[in-house]
Amino acid sequence: MTSIPAAEAGPPIQRVAIVGTGLIGTSIALAARRAGARVVGWDADRGVADRSAATGALEARASLEDAVRDADLVVVCTPIPDIAEAVVGSLRAAPAALVTDAGSIKAHIVEEVASGAEPADLGRYIPGHPLGGSERSGPEHAAASVVDDIVWVLAPIEASEPAAAERVARWIERLGARPVVLTPERHDRLVAYVSHLPQVASTSLMALAATEEAGEPDLLLLAAGGFRDLTRLAASNPRLWSEILLANRDQIVEAIDAFAERLGTLREQIAEGDADGVERTFSAAKAARLRLAAKPTVRAGVAVLQVGIADEPGALARITATLGAGEVNIEDLQIVHSPEGGRGTVHLTVAASAAEAAVEVLRTAGHDAIRLA
Amino acid sequence: MTSIPAAEAGPPIQRVAIVGTGLIGTSIALAARRAGARVVGWDADRGVADRSAATGALEARASLEDAVRDADLVVVCTPIPDIAEAVVGSLRAAPAALVTDAGSIKAHIVEEVASGAEPADLGRYIPGHPLGGSERSGPEHAAASVVDDIVWVLAPIEASEPAAAERVARWIERLGARPVVLTPERHDRLVAYVSHLPQVASTSLMALAATEEAGEPDLLLLAAGGFRDLTRLAASNPRLWSEILLANRDQIVEAIDAFAERLGTLREQIAEGDADGVERTFSAAKAARLRLAAKPTVRAGVAVLQVGIADEPGALARITATLGAGEVNIEDLQIVHSPEGGRGTVHLTVAASAAEAAVEVLRTAGHDAIRLA
Repeated sequence: MTSIPAAEAGPPIQRVAIVGTGLIGTSIALAARRAGARVVGWDADRGVADRSAATGALEARASLEDAVRDADLVVVCTPIPDIAEAVVGSLRAAPAALVTDAGSIKAHIVEEVASGAEPADLGRYIPGHPLGGSERSGPEHAAASVVDDIVWVLAPIEASEPAAAERVARWIERLGARPVVLTPERHDRLVAYVSHLPQVASTSLMALAATEEAGEPDLLLLAAGGFRDLTRLAASNPRLWSEILLANRDQIVEAIDAFAERLGTLREQIAEGDADGVERTFSAAKAARLRLAAKPTVRAGVAVLQVGIADEPGALARITATLGAGEVNIEDLQIVHSPEGGRGTVHLTVAASAAEAAVEVLRTAGHDAIRLA
Repeated sequence: MTSIPAAEAGPPIQRVAIVGTGLIGTSIALAARRAGARVVGWDADRGVADRSAATGALEARASLEDAVRDADLVVVCTPIPDIAEAVVGSLRAAPAALVTDAGSIKAHIVEEVASGAEPADLGRYIPGHPLGGSERSGPEHAAASVVDDIVWVLAPIEASEPAAAERVARWIERLGARPVVLTPERHDRLVAYVSHLPQVASTSLMALAATEEAGEPDLLLLAAGGFRDLTRLAASNPRLWSEILLANRDQIVEAIDAFAERLGTLREQIAEGDADGVERTFSAAKAARLRLAAKPTVRAGVAVLQVGIADEPGALARITATLGAGEVNIEDLQIVHSPEGGRGTVHLTVAASAAEAAVEVLRTAGHDAIRLA
């Protein structure tokens, strides 16, 4: 994984066209406007385009061709099944524009584009995947902050012109995100393990518990924080995930098989009463999880603080108020649970640049705060 | 699952002995003192007993026999492998005392106790499992609040005297927790699905990712909130979990097999490109997860509020300060993530009795708050 060098790569991108103006498309539009670009957009659903325009993110156009005609860069943010067609159409309608997309899988889309586009146009196609989003959907819930500090993968194909990829990478940086370059295949393999497999595991666990609950109506009475953590993803959008998993099926099937093998190994250790083996497996996983907790690199430039918290009304308020008064934005907050519930520690994610000040201000206010990572 | 009727069942418990004075033992001692009991304790590690005594939770005794001699109730809170011996020793040394324990599995312990104790003593043994804890350990991190509002399973055996079980249940209520009665076997089956299986899945997923990372050093750069949710449990104590899983091996092996079967079904749907099948599986799991989110019954008497949150410094502080000023204690707080990160909504858990006031005070202060459950 390499960052693109900071060398200049052609003129900066001034005119942006968004194709597909839902939450992510409108959020990118808002971030692009914030960075000084002129933004237009089109959506197959005219109502969605109008709602996007109403946020002030972009001017709505009546057709894809109208939207992309004058663009320096087209960003395709449609649902996965529609991406390739929109990319091909954009390459054709805007012969000078660079084209990227926001699909959360890459190899399958790249194949579709390669078989539909003129080979001479492919140099201008730089596949992408901004790893941001929101639990909401629709343009009215968009915000420029959705792309702040996120990892934004660029997955150039062989035909992609390096200078084109550099221009897009520079533009992503101006939007406030972090461009990271991977091949489409490598991207798909990595997200299979860290995004798609967790989703499959969460959904399978919840589906199993729901079936068991039919025979044991009080099953979920005993479901503490751990079960809730593991099944939170199971509330995700079924249609979206069906599209993602099928589009990345080879990689996800391989990841599921590898996971099933791990589960099988641990199952045998348990069935055989191999206490040392189980403990070794758990120790290795624990060490890896602590390394992960100490390395919150999913978004560059953040730090994690650990703060003790008293069990009384207002305890959390004192912590957050202290940071608010110090103009520190809390990126994420987590009350840390043991496997069986309970509390007493809060993990706060803040911008790395604010971490030292945050610890200082918390300690001055009498809180037990340390920087974990 | 039935609650024990409120009928009086013998004199209230005044003298409590804690055997094993770590975090859970000392927390139970503190809650018992708060409820007016006289508490003594013993730990195989004299230093642990002294540290527990230093918190003011109990008076340390020099031996198990000394500790339990005058008790109305003995609560055994040792590690799982030591529970049966401590229960048998307590039944023998305190011929008038009731004896319970805090082991997170039951059937295996019950078998060991039944084979070691005098049959005539078994009527006084009421196996238990308080579903509380903390991510910390050791008596200095104990607090009476660890048991506040938790589900506390009582798993009487056939020999247990019903009146004895009722006395213990009344005492648990006085401590501020919620007694729930299950057979040992049913308890173990339910926790296998909602506690042990999630732990096994989390550990297996983290172990797999750690191995993959060795070949793909940047794998975890793409690990967003979902992966972190799924692997949080993997940081749990390896020795403790080796003991739990081996002690409940039949149930956990069955649960792993059922989970593997679910995974396998979803794998086939993906491999075959069965989009409708995948979507149906996801929809069923989503519906179940939303029911779970709407039913936070793991701790009786809590409510979950959904509150919108602006993306700026101090936004969270305004919410928590508003509740703190209204004397509402925040039991849990979660910034809600989409499968790929992002934010904008906070889920707050508060006491059900405070939910209406909390919503009112938040709305009055201009927040967009609704009660989810």
